[in-house]
Amino acid sequence: MTRVFNFSAGPAMLPEPVLERAREEMLDWNGTGMSVMEMSHRGKAFMSIAEEAERDLRALLSIPDNYRVLFLQGGASAQFAMVPMNLLRGKTRADYINTGAWSKKAIAEGRRFADVNVAATGEADGFNSIPVFDTWQLSGDAAYVHYTPNETIGGVEFHWIPRTGDTPLVADMSSTILSRPVDVSRYGVIYAGAQKNIGPAGLTIVIVREDLIGDATEGTPTMFDYRTHAENGSMYNTPPTYGWYLAGLVFKWLLDLGGLAAMAEINRRKAEKLYAAIDASDFYTNPVAIESRSWMNVPFTLAKPELDGEFLKEAESMGLTNLKGHRSVGGMRASIYNAMPEAGVSALVDFMTDFEQRKG
Amino acid sequence: MTRVFNFSAGPAMLPEPVLERAREEMLDWNGTGMSVMEMSHRGKAFMSIAEEAERDLRALLSIPDNYRVLFLQGGASAQFAMVPMNLLRGKTRADYINTGAWSKKAIAEGRRFADVNVAATGEADGFNSIPVFDTWQLSGDAAYVHYTPNETIGGVEFHWIPRTGDTPLVADMSSTILSRPVDVSRYGVIYAGAQKNIGPAGLTIVIVREDLIGDATEGTPTMFDYRTHAENGSMYNTPPTYGWYLAGLVFKWLLDLGGLAAMAEINRRKAEKLYAAIDASDFYTNPVAIESRSWMNVPFTLAKPELDGEFLKEAESMGLTNLKGHRSVGGMRASIYNAMPEAGVSALVDFMTDFEQRKG
Repeated sequence: MTRVFNFSAGPAMLPEPVLERAREEMLDWNGTGMSVMEMSHRGKAFMSIAEEAERDLRALLSIPDNYRVLFLQGGASAQFAMVPMNLLRGKTRADYINTGAWSKKAIAEGRRFADVNVAATGEADGFNSIPVFDTWQLSGDAAYVHYTPNETIGGVEFHWIPRTGDTPLVADMSSTILSRPVDVSRYGVIYAGAQKNIGPAGLTIVIVREDLIGDATEGTPTMFDYRTHAENGSMYNTPPTYGWYLAGLVFKWLLDLGGLAAMAEINRRKAEKLYAAIDASDFYTNPVAIESRSWMNVPFTLAKPELDGEFLKEAESMGLTNLKGHRSVGGMRASIYNAMPEAGVSALVDFMTDFEQRKG
Repeated sequence: MTRVFNFSAGPAMLPEPVLERAREEMLDWNGTGMSVMEMSHRGKAFMSIAEEAERDLRALLSIPDNYRVLFLQGGASAQFAMVPMNLLRGKTRADYINTGAWSKKAIAEGRRFADVNVAATGEADGFNSIPVFDTWQLSGDAAYVHYTPNETIGGVEFHWIPRTGDTPLVADMSSTILSRPVDVSRYGVIYAGAQKNIGPAGLTIVIVREDLIGDATEGTPTMFDYRTHAENGSMYNTPPTYGWYLAGLVFKWLLDLGGLAAMAEINRRKAEKLYAAIDASDFYTNPVAIESRSWMNVPFTLAKPELDGEFLKEAESMGLTNLKGHRSVGGMRASIYNAMPEAGVSALVDFMTDFEQRKG
């Protein structure tokens, strides 16, 4: 078996020790004679797994006591509707920041339920930078402000938290959660699909301030009401138990590494190494403004796009996979989430340098 | 490692060969150097897994070409809202059959979106039998008729398909799908949470007739519109890829066994063996009318309820786990889905006989 360095934007690599542990426990978790997949979600064994996972996530992110952690389904795409359905609370207006493809999806769905004010957009700059906060046109009467701290496709990322005063701040952190410490108390809602930095696809984590729960819009499906899940410990119906368990293993892996400060240091090094290689070259280009560059998703183009196919083929043969850029952008994209080892980034940089020398 | 016979109502046992295969492929699927969990859902490898799973499910259930198969999230509880949101199509009324706990949940959520007519109910009989079809009061103008072919908690099951003429018939098959052949062409929509007879929790399969797709009620969240998923091959957003893969392994296991006719024969034998033991005893009782007894969930009580705790403890020590009845019913419940081996039922019957001889 040869494991590859998989630069997929998501679902993405998982830490190898997590997969090894899951393999080991596949037919028998902790002497129960059952796979975690086979356990009643209301039984003692799974309850202990579930509680430990939440406890570890709370420790990693220092989540304050007045926030609930929900383990849901449906991905960010479900949250695009759940956020307005739960947070409008009698208001009609919501502010959204448009920084690229995922912001646009949140906005499109938000418009179906709210009077959306796009308070800032990166459009004029081709979405290659985060709009400067001074230029934002926030409404006075918005129920919330929604933004996307990291854009998976464009590779732009906020390295600061917007100040929205008393208006709850909502963040789609799918592609950046757990990559570094974050001050949860600055947010009304943080949500994230698991398949990038948390665990397998099919699990969605929502961290929501308690006072924002319990006033969903009339006509909200029961399963889309945060209260349903908050009141039932995310077990109103059967949760995605195996994803929850794997997320728990990832949380333990992060704690063992030293938590999010240590993870941030590793992620910073990985990103700097890759951007430094790109910037030092005349062959590779990353279009993003330096202060807005993502630590997680690094798009880049070749000076000779006709070599894209060859680049991808050679990379793949060396075990560097899924480097093809999103179809809307072209070129390449290296997603280097938590589980991508530093050795993977080094191997990529070495390959890029070698490829440039031979073909550049 | 000693595997137990797990009689949980769901999540429930999975076939051991499926778990063994998943274990073997955990870090490297088919030489890709990736776990299935790590694969991009749009990549060649996962697409082949996804397509094969759908193909095998279509073969198992002989699904006609004018039905779409959707691999979704949210469980039956999400379908309780999605069904009215998608199927009302300008009408206001919907007929529901109430045969117990899960019917009631479907009805409660249905009432939030439709004018629900409960066309038949098992209430007068304590939900211990399926209401005779001749007594049903179907509306002339219902958009659909919803029923629950198997009630997980009460242990009643339909052994026939209601005739609803041109009104689409909708079935929550969560706890009975794949237990035997079914004539899909008789249905408008069949849906099922995976965690009983399909695979791990977090995957929901919806089989929907094409002409019922595309006219969702105004205000339906994009993720709750069948069209969203039908038009995108269930990949509008990231699907629960690992659950999809495991479901595919379960489908292969069923095909290898000889398909659903062979599975039905095994399930019939398992159920008959257990009911025969209960009926032959003065100590154990199952309250369900013979013609309405479930093949999947067998509730039973002890003549001396004060021995419940002892029964459960002894059973557990013999590797017969999760036999405690639902809190709303009490007593015992043995869920004997597809993955419960005949040896598990035999072991349970032997234990019950022995326990009765010693304590009855």
